[in-house]
Amino acid sequence: MKDALIIFDTTLRDGEQSPGASMTRDEKLRIARQLERMRVDVIEAGFAAASNGDFESVRSIAEAIKESTVCSLARANENDIRRAGEAIRPAARGRIHTFIATSPIHMEKKLRMTPDQVVEQAVKAIGWAREYTDDIEFSAEDAGRSEIDFLCRIFDAVIKAGAKTINVPDTVGYNVPEQYAATLRTLIERVPNADKVIWSVHCHNDLGLAVSNSLAAVMAGARQVECTINGLGERAGNASLEEIVMAVRTRADVFPVSTNIDTTQIVPASKLVSQITGYPVQPNKAIVGANAFAHESGIHQDGVLKHRETYEIMRAEDVGWGANKLVLGKHSGRNAFRARLQELGIEIGSEEQLNHAFARFKELADKKHEIFDEDLHALMSDEAVTPEQEHFRLVATRFHSETGETPRAEVTLAIGGQETRSQAEGSGPVDAAFKAIESVAGSGSELLLYSVNAITTGTDAQGEVTVRLAKDGRVVNGQGADTDIIVASAKAYLNALNKLCGGSEKLNPQV
Amino acid sequence: MKDALIIFDTTLRDGEQSPGASMTRDEKLRIARQLERMRVDVIEAGFAAASNGDFESVRSIAEAIKESTVCSLARANENDIRRAGEAIRPAARGRIHTFIATSPIHMEKKLRMTPDQVVEQAVKAIGWAREYTDDIEFSAEDAGRSEIDFLCRIFDAVIKAGAKTINVPDTVGYNVPEQYAATLRTLIERVPNADKVIWSVHCHNDLGLAVSNSLAAVMAGARQVECTINGLGERAGNASLEEIVMAVRTRADVFPVSTNIDTTQIVPASKLVSQITGYPVQPNKAIVGANAFAHESGIHQDGVLKHRETYEIMRAEDVGWGANKLVLGKHSGRNAFRARLQELGIEIGSEEQLNHAFARFKELADKKHEIFDEDLHALMSDEAVTPEQEHFRLVATRFHSETGETPRAEVTLAIGGQETRSQAEGSGPVDAAFKAIESVAGSGSELLLYSVNAITTGTDAQGEVTVRLAKDGRVVNGQGADTDIIVASAKAYLNALNKLCGGSEKLNPQV
Repeated sequence: MKDALIIFDTTLRDGEQSPGASMTRDEKLRIARQLERMRVDVIEAGFAAASNGDFESVRSIAEAIKESTVCSLARANENDIRRAGEAIRPAARGRIHTFIATSPIHMEKKLRMTPDQVVEQAVKAIGWAREYTDDIEFSAEDAGRSEIDFLCRIFDAVIKAGAKTINVPDTVGYNVPEQYAATLRTLIERVPNADKVIWSVHCHNDLGLAVSNSLAAVMAGARQVECTINGLGERAGNASLEEIVMAVRTRADVFPVSTNIDTTQIVPASKLVSQITGYPVQPNKAIVGANAFAHESGIHQDGVLKHRETYEIMRAEDVGWGANKLVLGKHSGRNAFRARLQELGIEIGSEEQLNHAFARFKELADKKHEIFDEDLHALMSDEAVTPEQEHFRLVATRFHSETGETPRAEVTLAIGGQETRSQAEGSGPVDAAFKAIESVAGSGSELLLYSVNAITTGTDAQGEVTVRLAKDGRVVNGQGADTDIIVASAKAYLNALNKLCGGSEKLNPQV
Repeated sequence: MKDALIIFDTTLRDGEQSPGASMTRDEKLRIARQLERMRVDVIEAGFAAASNGDFESVRSIAEAIKESTVCSLARANENDIRRAGEAIRPAARGRIHTFIATSPIHMEKKLRMTPDQVVEQAVKAIGWAREYTDDIEFSAEDAGRSEIDFLCRIFDAVIKAGAKTINVPDTVGYNVPEQYAATLRTLIERVPNADKVIWSVHCHNDLGLAVSNSLAAVMAGARQVECTINGLGERAGNASLEEIVMAVRTRADVFPVSTNIDTTQIVPASKLVSQITGYPVQPNKAIVGANAFAHESGIHQDGVLKHRETYEIMRAEDVGWGANKLVLGKHSGRNAFRARLQELGIEIGSEEQLNHAFARFKELADKKHEIFDEDLHALMSDEAVTPEQEHFRLVATRFHSETGETPRAEVTLAIGGQETRSQAEGSGPVDAAFKAIESVAGSGSELLLYSVNAITTGTDAQGEVTVRLAKDGRVVNGQGADTDIIVASAKAYLNALNKLCGGSEKLNPQV
């Protein structure tokens, strides 16, 4: 019998800290449901004290999710922990994850606390958390660069105080596998009652080693891995859930653990997170990249034909490739539409909302013969924007471009309900559309990134445009999907502007 | 004094085997020059026996590159090795890299040879190669799943025959670091004269472990790593050059080796390869992803401000970020243009070609105020297409789309020199343009992928479109860049069609 490896997904917390990847409550709920469907053990739903919006998101997920443990992050102070405790209260299983920095550089330069003060604060934090739950995780921020004696001391203290999971993050992605494994081995040997808690790792990918550091730690005794879908996360991201899970499964001969994960839900989860955050997955990404199972070379194809195992160590079906089935078309009815949304875990609030969404679906089906799951996700992402969040709305567009002439665009916007028309010329129709919008919106923001991906294959696929805007140090991603790339671009630009004018500042903690 | 770690780049060989990533001779030359500028030790320029085009590419690179060793791959047969030997003949330092499969499954199912026959063939191959060069590398294909006794036997035989580098590839990406390191350690202990050769590794990334497997092997004695820019390569790709190099450098306290690489050339190399192959780099990719050095979280930014090292283990400048400088504008003259192309390693054949390119540059500068290096690469990629390769050429376009109407496009093409006009409607202007083109081209190909990235920032940036088409099992990528996204899309589609009708079949070996 193998040990269980607990999969702790932090897409909704650390993943959301990727520049511009902030998600609405509804988007987070959709991802949380997919994580539950995939049988993730623990979902880190957010950092409840960061803002009211974050609190509400954690709380909604705690209400909706029944199978997975729902966790909120909290710094080691009373306010953070009480907010986290309140947010997870509705959960079937709730966890508070509290942290404090333990490396000399962080204690001195960031916290400006002595080691004694840090230990005292950590123990107090566990005490506050115990008022809400017994499932308490403690993280030593920047453990990868902390002194081992101090780590032993603080871990001993928090275990005595009641922490059940001890996390040893490599916050800055500085560790290499052998050395990181040695750290875990030493801690497990030296910390009293180490066998009474779960040891956890949280690795960042700055040197491309997040997955292998995590796996090395598992060989050394770690039994929880913190990871994200597509390896999303600050800078170069976190360990990829899909790579951890498939390495452990494919090399069951080497790893003494197994996970609970339904691997066939991996690719749908990857696509959903990519679509919602606007973060593309490169084709040569392991497991979830478009090429991960594509075989190009002649010699090689010959090998595959002669004997499947010659080159295949995993089967594409096992991770959910090929699940992109035609689901709906022009003649699909309202019930089929509603049923498919339910299967996808997309909640429809009222009959009125369903009617509205169905009308939009029919419009799309007129332009596009085959409607895939990805199209439905894009449609519902649009639909999920509530009127309060939608200061700018696209009413109509008109574009013309012709060799030898300057491209021009005319857009009609509703700004706070009032329709305005504007036009502009540009170096291309997208530029012209953005200039026409900017001439009335006057946001003064800077365009950092523009990218388009076709949601499905075929020339009538919808283009999904991501626009990243920056203003006064804030960065937001806007998304828009349409079969017309210029319309999709205008929608994405307006979505980003709505986020810029609606969003409030929030704290993103670093673990 | 540290040992030298030899960086063997196989972007032009294994990287090119990514679906649709095949490159023209001129594109390969530009990448080879960038690799030389980065001080890569060995450039695997291709597989000379694959086709006449591949032979010419390897030969051109062998002629042009002076500082790096230029290598051609060859199967272990006389014809392959003679083609490789001829192709590298002009090189200042030339290498032949020959391989044969050594795992039971491959010998039995693919080669249909006995182990004795495989050893005999490998020894013969080294003999043929020695007629051309002393710098001979031998690879045991699928070494990761081969029996250790047989590996010892075949390596002993090829070392006696004259091989100087012994490569132990993990062809299917099945290995995990500890075990792979143990394999290397055992081989180096057991194979006679192991200290007289360089031990090399070549890892695939199917489980996300290519970099860490390579680094584990380095700790076990490997002194050459085969890798690619951006981790390009079949399926989930190869080990990323940038991650290997920066891990070794950042953790100089752990690794007993150092490389020759000028790390400030890493980001320019990444962008060039991405632009030429049409393979995007995801933002959360280590080192070369757009976010790799971006800091989002509030707490964290505070930490960075208070003390730089709090969260930074590498400096963005050290890997060449921030090198995207404004280089040319509307008023730049012909000499400035020529000088910048030379600095970028882009060769201009004749004065006539320079004049033509300069005219195109002026056209672009009219539409776009600031011209960056990336724009010049895109411009010259277009320029590099010779008339013979350009069966279809875009003459003029006209697009119109308007809310409530069906988008329509009119395109004028020159097909084999003859102008034809056609028009079509579509679900969007890109769809309409593709349909208009297809109505006269009649290729019957299938659109697999469509993506757009802005080459630089700002709304007047050029969009670079990648279109992937498939027909009868062949897959090609087409690229096109323009400030008008519809024009860029039409160019990309035609570029792909030109590749489909021009290209010949070739073999892609698997190592």
